[in-house]
Amino acid sequence: MSNVIFSTQISKELNRILDSTKYSKLAVIVDENTLKHCLPLLDTKDYKLIEINAGEKYKTLDTCTFIWQKLTEYSFDRHGLVINLGGGVIGDMGGFCASTYKRGIRFINIPTTLLAQVDASVGGKLGVDFNGFKNHIGLFAEPEAVLIDAIFLRTLPENELKSGYAEVIKHHLIRDFNGWNTLSQSEFNSLDWLEIIKHSVKIKNQIVSEDPRESGLRKILNFGHTVGHAIESHFLNTDEPLLHGEAIALGMICESHISFQRNMISKDVLNEITHHISNHYKLRVIKEEAFEILWNLMGQDKKNNTSNVLAVLLNSIGEATFDCTISKKETFEALNFLNHV
Amino acid sequence: MSNVIFSTQISKELNRILDSTKYSKLAVIVDENTLKHCLPLLDTKDYKLIEINAGEKYKTLDTCTFIWQKLTEYSFDRHGLVINLGGGVIGDMGGFCASTYKRGIRFINIPTTLLAQVDASVGGKLGVDFNGFKNHIGLFAEPEAVLIDAIFLRTLPENELKSGYAEVIKHHLIRDFNGWNTLSQSEFNSLDWLEIIKHSVKIKNQIVSEDPRESGLRKILNFGHTVGHAIESHFLNTDEPLLHGEAIALGMICESHISFQRNMISKDVLNEITHHISNHYKLRVIKEEAFEILWNLMGQDKKNNTSNVLAVLLNSIGEATFDCTISKKETFEALNFLNHV
Repeated sequence: MSNVIFSTQISKELNRILDSTKYSKLAVIVDENTLKHCLPLLDTKDYKLIEINAGEKYKTLDTCTFIWQKLTEYSFDRHGLVINLGGGVIGDMGGFCASTYKRGIRFINIPTTLLAQVDASVGGKLGVDFNGFKNHIGLFAEPEAVLIDAIFLRTLPENELKSGYAEVIKHHLIRDFNGWNTLSQSEFNSLDWLEIIKHSVKIKNQIVSEDPRESGLRKILNFGHTVGHAIESHFLNTDEPLLHGEAIALGMICESHISFQRNMISKDVLNEITHHISNHYKLRVIKEEAFEILWNLMGQDKKNNTSNVLAVLLNSIGEATFDCTISKKETFEALNFLNHV
Repeated sequence: MSNVIFSTQISKELNRILDSTKYSKLAVIVDENTLKHCLPLLDTKDYKLIEINAGEKYKTLDTCTFIWQKLTEYSFDRHGLVINLGGGVIGDMGGFCASTYKRGIRFINIPTTLLAQVDASVGGKLGVDFNGFKNHIGLFAEPEAVLIDAIFLRTLPENELKSGYAEVIKHHLIRDFNGWNTLSQSEFNSLDWLEIIKHSVKIKNQIVSEDPRESGLRKILNFGHTVGHAIESHFLNTDEPLLHGEAIALGMICESHISFQRNMISKDVLNEITHHISNHYKLRVIKEEAFEILWNLMGQDKKNNTSNVLAVLLNSIGEATFDCTISKKETFEALNFLNHV
């Protein structure tokens, strides 16, 4: 299990860890956003700053080369330590660079978005995109520590917060019936984020520790992602692209609908899920002509190692099944349902 | 411990492994030499060929990008298998590419040089050079299997064979007194290579399994390498560059001399080592003006994390000590000794 530390005093906590760790040099990786909004919240001393461009499109080997070059210029040896201060891109890419620099130096992740805090902070999946494929080059490695403080969420735009919240919803739907009942009755604006994150991370940690290399159970974390990824890709180059979590939220409605069609969940449960999601996210209408495009995108997903399209379905709230082959017909019906919510 | 298989029937052995392994696709990585001399010795079927340029200067991220692209073009999924057929460059780089493709697919190494068979086949060190630094980007990962057959040595030029033999000498000097006595009295041309390799790999395996991440003991495998790497670098851009093992052989003479200067080994032992090495390798005269250059190269080595120059010294034949700080004076005396052997 990752060493995840929740704190309301991130700077103090980080300094405590740094004081107790023997390292030869320290680097902090930031982008222009975390340089401005997050770095000032720390009072770390004597570090080298590595600034990269913000955004998924810079999650590439070229940026890795830049980071490796900086570590080399700063004469980092095997006892150096890297702090990744940012969202999922910085955590995944900075962790990958640290884990491959001189065959691996240590790193600490400080995720600064809700999405990274509840999702990317656990599980040791590191890497970069390659030739248009997400996280195509990477490895599994665990950070020395993950430091989570809800203070970073204050500077986060609302849509980014909602994007992360989709993963919170997902964790409850696949694994926590009681938690879902509480969550679905809570007011979004009065949520205690540190508690929400703590609980969500705990769920993910349980799942990941039972199946660290994603050979089975861990796949349930892909709930909403088969249809959701396709929706995300489809809207990517439009005027109104969707954030990752926004697309996953819509994917969860669709995959819940398929579960309902198969009599795995009742109409009431489907409505409850749909209601909660549509309360928090702007729904999109997907033109019927686009259904075929989405279906093809699903077939190319790296989760699918056969020509079948696989998805995670719900047996009930709090229980999911992975590797379910879904048909084109039921997928189209689900997209149609989404259009009429 | 790596799954190292010694065989005189490599093709049969490989097919046996492939038959018992479930994989979705198979790729064989070769260079122009192993394509010509080694691939014909296998009768593997239904594989994709990935051919890269031979030589250390192609051990780069650019070549990795080429390999990752090929795997992607061939639609390799997480259940694909890569066979690395070649020397240390192909084993290290092909293993690195496999271990980072989709966060890691399996690979089999078939080392085709003596150096790769006795050295690179064990220990899980993978990677590529970066900005002039050897193996700067990489990781630790174990192949599914390492297949060793002495048949590949038949097509190997004599200097390449000698280069690998230096590591055999090294393994005996640092860990096997009795083995050394046998080895030093054997005729080079009548050596039973499969037995020699088997024994050498066994020694390396013992050391590596006691310290897989090179935090202590494993460093004794660097015997001869502090001075040897500097000699290798120094002659690199001359008319007569040295192969890796040739340089390490000279480095072992120097580091044995320092051990003698410190009364760790006797004059007789020093002479015995020097005699055996000078019988097998062409010695080089290093101009006195170059001593200072070599000393500076030693200071930049990645093994040294302080301003000190560290080396492995011998307490006796079969026993070595690591992390010994050596002085400029004793290093110069050792180089001077080498010049007068």
